[in-house]
Amino acid sequence: MDDLSTPNLTRSDSEATAQTSAPVETDVDTAPASANISSHDLATQLVAKLCHDFISPAGAIMSGLDLLEDPSAQDMKQEALNLIAASAKKMVTLVHFARVAFGAATSSEAFSGSQLEKILGDMYSTMRAELDFAIDPQMLFDKPASRALLNLGLLAGNSLPTGGKAKLEAVKSDDGMTITAESRGPRARLKAEAIEGLTGLPLGDGLNGQWIQPHWLYSVVHEARGTLDYTTDVDSLSFKIFLPA
Amino acid sequence: MDDLSTPNLTRSDSEATAQTSAPVETDVDTAPASANISSHDLATQLVAKLCHDFISPAGAIMSGLDLLEDPSAQDMKQEALNLIAASAKKMVTLVHFARVAFGAATSSEAFSGSQLEKILGDMYSTMRAELDFAIDPQMLFDKPASRALLNLGLLAGNSLPTGGKAKLEAVKSDDGMTITAESRGPRARLKAEAIEGLTGLPLGDGLNGQWIQPHWLYSVVHEARGTLDYTTDVDSLSFKIFLPA
Repeated sequence: MDDLSTPNLTRSDSEATAQTSAPVETDVDTAPASANISSHDLATQLVAKLCHDFISPAGAIMSGLDLLEDPSAQDMKQEALNLIAASAKKMVTLVHFARVAFGAATSSEAFSGSQLEKILGDMYSTMRAELDFAIDPQMLFDKPASRALLNLGLLAGNSLPTGGKAKLEAVKSDDGMTITAESRGPRARLKAEAIEGLTGLPLGDGLNGQWIQPHWLYSVVHEARGTLDYTTDVDSLSFKIFLPA
Repeated sequence: MDDLSTPNLTRSDSEATAQTSAPVETDVDTAPASANISSHDLATQLVAKLCHDFISPAGAIMSGLDLLEDPSAQDMKQEALNLIAASAKKMVTLVHFARVAFGAATSSEAFSGSQLEKILGDMYSTMRAELDFAIDPQMLFDKPASRALLNLGLLAGNSLPTGGKAKLEAVKSDDGMTITAESRGPRARLKAEAIEGLTGLPLGDGLNGQWIQPHWLYSVVHEARGTLDYTTDVDSLSFKIFLPA
């Protein structure tokens, strides 16, 4: 996490640095409140994202079944079954992630590091980035901290579109919990929509689907009266969340 | 819709009437605002409901795949495929419903009566109640009206746990749209949680899953500055929503 302590280290006038933008720090407490999106819209946009995520594996399962029943495609039976199996696994992965990251998850009051690593690791198996979950398997996370960790982990992975490694750490102290993520890889970056979402700004010209998940992370931290800072650098991004006890 | 105009017709001191409770009318405009649930909670509880709905068919597909691969269950192959097919269809039905009823559904600005009948009819195919969709297939519904219609339709069907018929109607006027539902069947009733949700009250002792969808309907009508009334009677329930133009 060296970059966090020296956010200005690589600032220069080089094109590369200009493209990755200067270090930005955002304090959720002083950022505009999420009132710029109505409670109704927060829910509908989150559900729209979920439906968008779910419809693809659900449709793939239907396609696999069609293929199974097609008499002219009997040589494709195994491929069809593989498609159905992979899509069903993806569906279950998405639901398990959504339950904790976006849902109320009323059946469990707290999650262990190992439980959260399993949920997030399954999501990473569908992504290009690699997960380095450097958190004690026994460490306990309450619901807000679990939501923050999973959403930060997803964002850290999504900010590595061509691959790389996302490292997650968490430290408890007397006054709360600090969760950090470092995404390191070629083309590590946040899209404009993601920056708007993460800083509590309304969506500009971009895509809702790119905006809502970072905005949800902002909302989770805001709801817990925490702070969220991030720093962009050449081929790396650092995020730091503090949640008060 | 006779019962709507004569809500007191069957009031008496009989036990049956006492059980179904006296007619209740609720005006969303004057009811407590949905501020008693935070924007965050509205989203998390809606997502929790969706995840709960999705995990059952997703798990059934996994079970079907396990059965297909079990060498000792080769005589169950067709049952396994049937289970996978039925569960995949249910999943697609749920996602299509959720997209319009709960999600932002940004890909379409308006829905026709026939589109909404298809979405709701597929949901009813998984329920005991029968749907009587007495709405012009050509009639156009904007997003808030589509959401209100689908959620009212689902609630009307869910209030007939042992079967019966739910009739939906919609009338446009210069000042807005009126959507009505009549649920008629043995044991037609709203659970206590559903009444709390529908009237904008916080959840009491009951189950979140029974509360959130009626509360979402309340929230949809509230967001559109509309009104929502309902009347309970022996073996029937009537709902009336008005959405201003």
